[in-house]
Amino acid sequence: MTDESTTTDPTPRRTRGGGGAARRAARSQVSFDVSPVIQRRIRDYDLLDDETLDIIERNAETVLEEIGVNFVENPAALERWREAGADVRGERVHIPRGLARKLCATAPASFVQHARNPERSVEIGGRSLVLAPVYGPPFVRDVAGGRRYATMADFRNFVRLGQMSKWLHHSGGTVCEPTDVAVNKRHLDMLLAHMTLSDKPFMGSVTEPSRAADSVEMAEILFGKDFVQANTVMTSLININSPLTFDATMMGALEIYAAANQACIVSPFVVGGAMAPVSVVGTLTQVLAEVLAGVAYSQLVRPGAPVIAGAFVTSIDMNSGAPTFGTPEASQITYGAGQLVRRLGLPFRSAGAFTGSKLPDAQAAYETANSLNMGLLSGVNFMLHACGWLEGGLVASFEKFVMDADQLGALHKLAAGVPADEAAQAMDAIREVGPGGHFLGCAHTQAHFREAFWRSDMLDYKPFETWDEEGARDTEALASARVAKLLADYREPGIDIARREALEAYVAEKKASMPDAFA
Amino acid sequence: MTDESTTTDPTPRRTRGGGGAARRAARSQVSFDVSPVIQRRIRDYDLLDDETLDIIERNAETVLEEIGVNFVENPAALERWREAGADVRGERVHIPRGLARKLCATAPASFVQHARNPERSVEIGGRSLVLAPVYGPPFVRDVAGGRRYATMADFRNFVRLGQMSKWLHHSGGTVCEPTDVAVNKRHLDMLLAHMTLSDKPFMGSVTEPSRAADSVEMAEILFGKDFVQANTVMTSLININSPLTFDATMMGALEIYAAANQACIVSPFVVGGAMAPVSVVGTLTQVLAEVLAGVAYSQLVRPGAPVIAGAFVTSIDMNSGAPTFGTPEASQITYGAGQLVRRLGLPFRSAGAFTGSKLPDAQAAYETANSLNMGLLSGVNFMLHACGWLEGGLVASFEKFVMDADQLGALHKLAAGVPADEAAQAMDAIREVGPGGHFLGCAHTQAHFREAFWRSDMLDYKPFETWDEEGARDTEALASARVAKLLADYREPGIDIARREALEAYVAEKKASMPDAFA
Repeated sequence: MTDESTTTDPTPRRTRGGGGAARRAARSQVSFDVSPVIQRRIRDYDLLDDETLDIIERNAETVLEEIGVNFVENPAALERWREAGADVRGERVHIPRGLARKLCATAPASFVQHARNPERSVEIGGRSLVLAPVYGPPFVRDVAGGRRYATMADFRNFVRLGQMSKWLHHSGGTVCEPTDVAVNKRHLDMLLAHMTLSDKPFMGSVTEPSRAADSVEMAEILFGKDFVQANTVMTSLININSPLTFDATMMGALEIYAAANQACIVSPFVVGGAMAPVSVVGTLTQVLAEVLAGVAYSQLVRPGAPVIAGAFVTSIDMNSGAPTFGTPEASQITYGAGQLVRRLGLPFRSAGAFTGSKLPDAQAAYETANSLNMGLLSGVNFMLHACGWLEGGLVASFEKFVMDADQLGALHKLAAGVPADEAAQAMDAIREVGPGGHFLGCAHTQAHFREAFWRSDMLDYKPFETWDEEGARDTEALASARVAKLLADYREPGIDIARREALEAYVAEKKASMPDAFA
Repeated sequence: MTDESTTTDPTPRRTRGGGGAARRAARSQVSFDVSPVIQRRIRDYDLLDDETLDIIERNAETVLEEIGVNFVENPAALERWREAGADVRGERVHIPRGLARKLCATAPASFVQHARNPERSVEIGGRSLVLAPVYGPPFVRDVAGGRRYATMADFRNFVRLGQMSKWLHHSGGTVCEPTDVAVNKRHLDMLLAHMTLSDKPFMGSVTEPSRAADSVEMAEILFGKDFVQANTVMTSLININSPLTFDATMMGALEIYAAANQACIVSPFVVGGAMAPVSVVGTLTQVLAEVLAGVAYSQLVRPGAPVIAGAFVTSIDMNSGAPTFGTPEASQITYGAGQLVRRLGLPFRSAGAFTGSKLPDAQAAYETANSLNMGLLSGVNFMLHACGWLEGGLVASFEKFVMDADQLGALHKLAAGVPADEAAQAMDAIREVGPGGHFLGCAHTQAHFREAFWRSDMLDYKPFETWDEEGARDTEALASARVAKLLADYREPGIDIARREALEAYVAEKKASMPDAFA
């Protein structure tokens, strides 16, 4: 880490001088580079054997046929299922063996989500891994302000940090809940922030079907109506109410998005022991049944609609009932889910910077690193919550956001695989240096050291004495300085003024059209 | 975590009452259970393809034949090599293609290291993973005392913590350097501590051949001479002086141990960019050449001597020259080394709770978790430094020792694999609960929840309010309380008094026989 990158400098640099001033500016400027999505050149880790996968698939079909799933308060969904050949009794849908999997076959194995800056468009599926930030916390935390309810100002700052991160490919959705804006209006402000403060892809609202419709309308203003009809420009998070229940709100949003050819993550939200059995194979059986039913339903709404098969998995502390994160059981379930989803041929969403810790401390980092490493090797294609998550998802942490985002760089390097060409073999270097020599000065090192090693933008590698003199800062303190620096250096990506004004007018008009609601 | 487990109680409990007192004692007592070594029921992660492995093996043979390795100030070693068919020029040994690998074939694929408590004996090799604590730091750190030179009192406390840890299978060696004891005598005090304060297996001294001989003599007192001649009771760490250099001190110790049928870890100590090329494949080539030469040499000393092929790997921050830990390059090299060592058919030592951080903070935990997870999946059989390592190995941290040791429990659970029997399939539970239900109360959960999930002994899962009222402690603070509790609850394992007195007499006599040396 250079001194510049940790110094808080509140002055945004808008002008550039030549010569020394330009060089100083270049040195002190935080990089705006954005890495392309991760293309895995390494294999996935297959934890489960084929026999176990076969058992799970067979049992999941039994669950769908014999136990069935509930589509609650949704007569249209029941009608769609009836027409497709399911046995519908009340709100319970019994799906004959094989039907759901057959319906899933029309979902694309991979799709492109477009960003308004074409360079930021992402491919979701196949060997790619797209990283998106934390989603949903009602609280935020930082060193200066402690833990507090999130506001729209916090939300905008998180979007800015996401835009500045080299390793985040996606701006996300509800990076925190802006609790100072009415519940029925905050989706408008959130979308406006993603659309104007970032040029990365983003997520739509799912808290009511009408808000999903608003999201599509705003996307049409940003991208043009024709473009949105022909292309996917939003990926939205549809949680399944585990066990085996599809509620009207989430399904209503899914119906809007699928009909508009916009992507949904269909994701069981499983706290093992509470919403699923206390066993890995049992949980995977239920997760697969839920994913099959949810994805199949998206294809009943519109065959070919882009969809991501998700699995949000935590276990539970059976003493306190608290959800736990970064645990071996969560890893086992996620590895298995990845294998099952690959056999389905769908993009896979799971893992994230999960932790139950209240602080961005060692617990937070152990749990997060456990989950991030597993996420890479389990074949995740879309990783929501890839940075900033704290306290079981109740808190979005500014410091942890940049700490995690830095670790995401290491995933990129790992995923890139290991070249074995002549330069990589380095036989000349070994010859040149010989027994007892030193590689620092050899020709091969000079030629390759710049790209040889992943470099952290914020971890401390200084000698003890230097570190001590500079205040003996821990990771949270270093991260706090980096947050301040990034926000100070942030500049809005350019946007067409007419579109921006149209978006602002749409939001103003919508907000004026209804009274505030706070529930 | 229960309240008891975090409360410091300085009163060792030596007596037991009945009834309520016994129950209270049972509740407040730290568990003395020790887990058997990890038996991996999961596959290894093969990062490199066979073609790359073939290239590395071919190039390593070229290195041995054309560049050669130096055996420094060791005429006996040169003579052994000459007799074996190597081309020796000065101190440089050129090993004909294939010879080293052929010599390695007599080394056992796995062996048992006996502990004085037979229940603590460990199998090293095959599918097992043995976990041992940090090795070598001249400093210690804890919350109360900060960073300071390590003493023998610190050393003994680390051995006590290791003995108390459920997840550590091995007491290790130089868990810290007791700098208050003369350099030429401290190995005696260290061995005595391992032999009396712990009943787990331990490591011998390698800092001089005479100290290795002392280690063997002390082991003979502890185990009996006949037993030591027939069995392996020590595993000792022989570092190779990378690149490609075998110094007389380390080789002298190896010669003593191999001749006595005691195990050695033959381990290149590689800081990528300094002692090896700045590329993964180049580094692996050199590591393999060094391991082949070192293991082959052990077999020249005594065919069949137990040996572990090691790889201690870090990269370097090319800006500051500081070694870095938990990096993607270190993971890539370790995965590859695991594959190469498996192809050699030898036990593999690598990974550890590595970090460059000065504090047991988030950086320490990210880097450590990256390395521990990789260590499990890369097929490591013996993991030295599995807990307590801080600041690039300069510091042994009391808090990090118990933090890391707790994470090692998660590795055990992951390694155990995923059962798929009828109970694990949990179809009855899914049927019983049905859509919209809750699994907490169902029969399957009641029957299985106790063993369902790995449970941390020290991470915080409490509700925010409780945690806040209790002082809003971070992981380091929780760990500090656990260290105090463990040391208070520690009791010495029983030992035959005559052997103990003989060991003490041996140490006293040896120490009296020579003046103190401090370098």
